Amino acid sequence: MTNINSKPALHLIPVQLGTAPTNLWLPSDVQNIAANIKYYIAENAKTARLFLKQINTTHAIRDINIKTIEKNSTKEELVKWLEPYNSGHSIGLVSEAGCPAIADPGANIVEIAHSMGITVMPHTGPSSIILGLMASGLNGQSFAFHGYAPVDTSARERQIKLWENISRKQNQTQIAIETPYRNDAFMDSLIKTLNPATKLSIALGLHTPKQLIQTLTVDQWRKRGKPTPMHKIPCLFLFLAN
Amino acid sequence: MTNINSKPALHLIPVQLGTAPTNLWLPSDVQNIAANIKYYIAENAKTARLFLKQINTTHAIRDINIKTIEKNSTKEELVKWLEPYNSGHSIGLVSEAGCPAIADPGANIVEIAHSMGITVMPHTGPSSIILGLMASGLNGQSFAFHGYAPVDTSARERQIKLWENISRKQNQTQIAIETPYRNDAFMDSLIKTLNPATKLSIALGLHTPKQLIQTLTVDQWRKRGKPTPMHKIPCLFLFLAN
Repeated sequence: MTNINSKPALHLIPVQLGTAPTNLWLPSDVQNIAANIKYYIAENAKTARLFLKQINTTHAIRDINIKTIEKNSTKEELVKWLEPYNSGHSIGLVSEAGCPAIADPGANIVEIAHSMGITVMPHTGPSSIILGLMASGLNGQSFAFHGYAPVDTSARERQIKLWENISRKQNQTQIAIETPYRNDAFMDSLIKTLNPATKLSIALGLHTPKQLIQTLTVDQWRKRGKPTPMHKIPCLFLFLAN
Repeated sequence: MTNINSKPALHLIPVQLGTAPTNLWLPSDVQNIAANIKYYIAENAKTARLFLKQINTTHAIRDINIKTIEKNSTKEELVKWLEPYNSGHSIGLVSEAGCPAIADPGANIVEIAHSMGITVMPHTGPSSIILGLMASGLNGQSFAFHGYAPVDTSARERQIKLWENISRKQNQTQIAIETPYRNDAFMDSLIKTLNPATKLSIALGLHTPKQLIQTLTVDQWRKRGKPTPMHKIPCLFLFLAN
């Protein structure tokens, strides 16, 4: 394995979800691999630098080359950013939080790397989807991650109903995220729309001092009310109909 | 965070996927938390001991209490196994490989822990689903994990077609695993059944010297043939229709 990791590759490096110490969420060998990389492609250069400050980088951070993925980044640009590989350099891909290319941009860079014959090395790190699903007690043998629900309230509630039907038919846990300032609206829609017996789990503020993981039936949520405040705290929502 | 982790909890501890060094896949703080736990619930006591030998356990391994989850384990037994929590002890949950309660048993134990008011602490570690999805270059913003496909060939091929239709309609990556000795049969069915333009990715032998991650269109797989040998090597299969 050491040999594999010392060869140049596109290394997929997970980054922090919250404020917990690096040693809680990133294996030491992955920290070492990331610390030696001089070429990074990032969703957000600021959070990438925040990450690099947490590990003991070999190069001064100002000497590390960080390219930022923009919505209008062209394929030609992405290919160019991967070119240092051809001179024997590894490249690191990091997203704003958690695992790159999952619930985040970056998959197109991985796709281009494959087409260029670049070795792709995924690494272990924090995934809110996996942490939240493990801790929910809901079905982890069949699940779907949908990303964001529609913003419009009635479209959102129709979507929740559709997901609940799939969940019931397939015994499949449904997983979604929301832009943190819309957490309360999404939780309200879930509690209002889902069947009383459906189990609804939240993983709020993972890896922060406010971490809250709670699984209740919708009926219980209706009686107890949702936790406050959810506003602006990253949250994963999971439910399983029966 | 240190405070959270020093309080008794049900700790969800991921274990090895392959033969790679522990420091590549388990954060040092998680190793320390796991090393201090005296009560374990395991899918397989043998692999649990193999894991405990890799970390520097505080207690001699023979003094660590390991309960094995059986298909016929009753709720009463599981409740009893969680009872050391009430005397201030943490309990560790480990599966045979990767993350507990994901693509593996254990979710019912987490569910019972929630109902007993036990703090559930999920930890970061290797997940073949996340590693394979990150590295595939396929859509990581919408995906479904289905577990195992049907064993019967024609039922399996019908199921693959159904999943491909969902993938096309929802731009959703479909993910499945197979019992390693059936990998070749499953790969044959995928290559035969899926549309030529569908992208098919495999993550074979993750965290072993034979690790192979490859994404090609079904048409390309038909021309190049599947990699050999896949037999008895854990493999994750992912595809995305277009």
